[in-house]
Amino acid sequence: MSNRICDLFEIKYPIIQAGMIWCSGWRLASAVSNSGGLGIIGAGSMYPDILLEHIQKQKIASNKPYAVNLPLLYPDIEKHIKTIIEQQVPIVFTSAGNPSTWTKILKAEGIKVVHVIANTKFALKAQDAGVDAIVAEGFEAGGHNGREETTTLCLIPQINKAVELPIIAAGGIGSGKSMLACMVLGAEAVQIGSLFAASQESSAHIKFKQKITELKEGETQLSLKKLTPVRLVKNEFFQRVFNAESNGASTEELQTILGKARSKLGMFEGELMEGELEIGQISAMINEIKPASQIVQEIWEEYLMAKKEVLGLI
Amino acid sequence: MSNRICDLFEIKYPIIQAGMIWCSGWRLASAVSNSGGLGIIGAGSMYPDILLEHIQKQKIASNKPYAVNLPLLYPDIEKHIKTIIEQQVPIVFTSAGNPSTWTKILKAEGIKVVHVIANTKFALKAQDAGVDAIVAEGFEAGGHNGREETTTLCLIPQINKAVELPIIAAGGIGSGKSMLACMVLGAEAVQIGSLFAASQESSAHIKFKQKITELKEGETQLSLKKLTPVRLVKNEFFQRVFNAESNGASTEELQTILGKARSKLGMFEGELMEGELEIGQISAMINEIKPASQIVQEIWEEYLMAKKEVLGLI
Repeated sequence: MSNRICDLFEIKYPIIQAGMIWCSGWRLASAVSNSGGLGIIGAGSMYPDILLEHIQKQKIASNKPYAVNLPLLYPDIEKHIKTIIEQQVPIVFTSAGNPSTWTKILKAEGIKVVHVIANTKFALKAQDAGVDAIVAEGFEAGGHNGREETTTLCLIPQINKAVELPIIAAGGIGSGKSMLACMVLGAEAVQIGSLFAASQESSAHIKFKQKITELKEGETQLSLKKLTPVRLVKNEFFQRVFNAESNGASTEELQTILGKARSKLGMFEGELMEGELEIGQISAMINEIKPASQIVQEIWEEYLMAKKEVLGLI
Repeated sequence: MSNRICDLFEIKYPIIQAGMIWCSGWRLASAVSNSGGLGIIGAGSMYPDILLEHIQKQKIASNKPYAVNLPLLYPDIEKHIKTIIEQQVPIVFTSAGNPSTWTKILKAEGIKVVHVIANTKFALKAQDAGVDAIVAEGFEAGGHNGREETTTLCLIPQINKAVELPIIAAGGIGSGKSMLACMVLGAEAVQIGSLFAASQESSAHIKFKQKITELKEGETQLSLKKLTPVRLVKNEFFQRVFNAESNGASTEELQTILGKARSKLGMFEGELMEGELEIGQISAMINEIKPASQIVQEIWEEYLMAKKEVLGLI
């Protein structure tokens, strides 16, 4: 059995590891790709020379398909694009920006292009730009997020109705059951972030990984909505932002509180109180740091089991 | 085929119409119950004599099981409880309050009790209070909502892990596919609000029903978080609240903007600009005002079809 996403990426399981700043370098991406899913190198937190290094190491560590995630608002985007083309990266996931600028250039090089969206308007724009597939990411996802706050359960059917392209569901997926739920809604694959952020091969700081395994329900929240909405762990930094927002802080005041390099401080350097810790709501269900290969295998086996159990439902 | 919820309520389909202020009187509840689902009279917007009248009319219009939804913070709660017991209402859904106070009293009268929750903490409290089932309602739901903002996709697995009781999923459900998605996650029934709020038998004002059919993605938002979070249509009233919140309005200032009886003004009297219009995110997928019986039948048939289609998934 196969489907459009497995055929497009030439992967065994329709399980995609999200490209995540400070978490997904070549170690994680190659582990996922070698396990039959699609691993993604997250370029958003990499200088151009670092991205090149990760791609080169990826090629040594795995001969399976992989992708690079590229936030289109990245300041040095031309350099990243150049590296991606020169290194013949097979698949690019673009996000946070306009897909019309780069899609044709990448596709002309034989690169498959996927764009991440959180609403129908951008799904249609991505389709017009000529992408091969769409990631539809719901409100429960970690990190940057759509202003409409549409949840995965509401978003997937809407995107499915609006576009013909294959859809990859993202946000809130942490088990084979939630994978099946998204496939039932019309997705043809799932993109999983939080579970892989806490995996052994994630480049996140061990303190951040441990924090993920300890988080409880309601301990993340969409924040900084006057800047760019982002789902964060409710730590001391979050609380300061929250208090400022409650008191009507302006975008400038929020920008000052945010400062610079705070996500690196939190996720890569392990400063749990003052760092920006981006993670999804489903972190409340994560209790263990596991190898990426085990995550892929468990999700897939749970998915197959959940499919069988459907027959027993009323 | 059956399951615990169908057996508990003695209903044919595990489809429950949410008790909704200003929308769900006896006409809607009896239409849903007569169609094989469970109809609920929403007591939250009824004076005690009005509730009595609705229960009496329900009994004439249908001999099938039905329920009354009772917000436990209702000021005249003792009178409502008295009516419910005297009228031998078979099932009560309680919400917005502590289930420990009334559950035993209702159960001693042979009444089945279900409590609505939005987090694990209250699911466990409801279980301790002795309820028969739990409604787990996600962030995407219309009306009042949990402070944790946990979406249905994340909430159902968490509640399923925490309690043994049968779970009714609510929030974001508007099709047989989303019903199946929730059943896959561990629910044994779904509670549907928005679709029934826009049904022919809903007591909502026709202008509000039409408004629901016109809403697009992102046109509802969780609001008034400093008071009690509530998902509202983004109309002129919402915008005024939003602006005040952005500027750091206090709870007192927000209470003044809110005033009194604004939900009646919007949903029952059809004042679309200045009224409080409570509806779920899934309203973006509702394009037609239908009879409640058609809604039940379509959801059920889609659900059965979606079950079959699971076999064709990878």
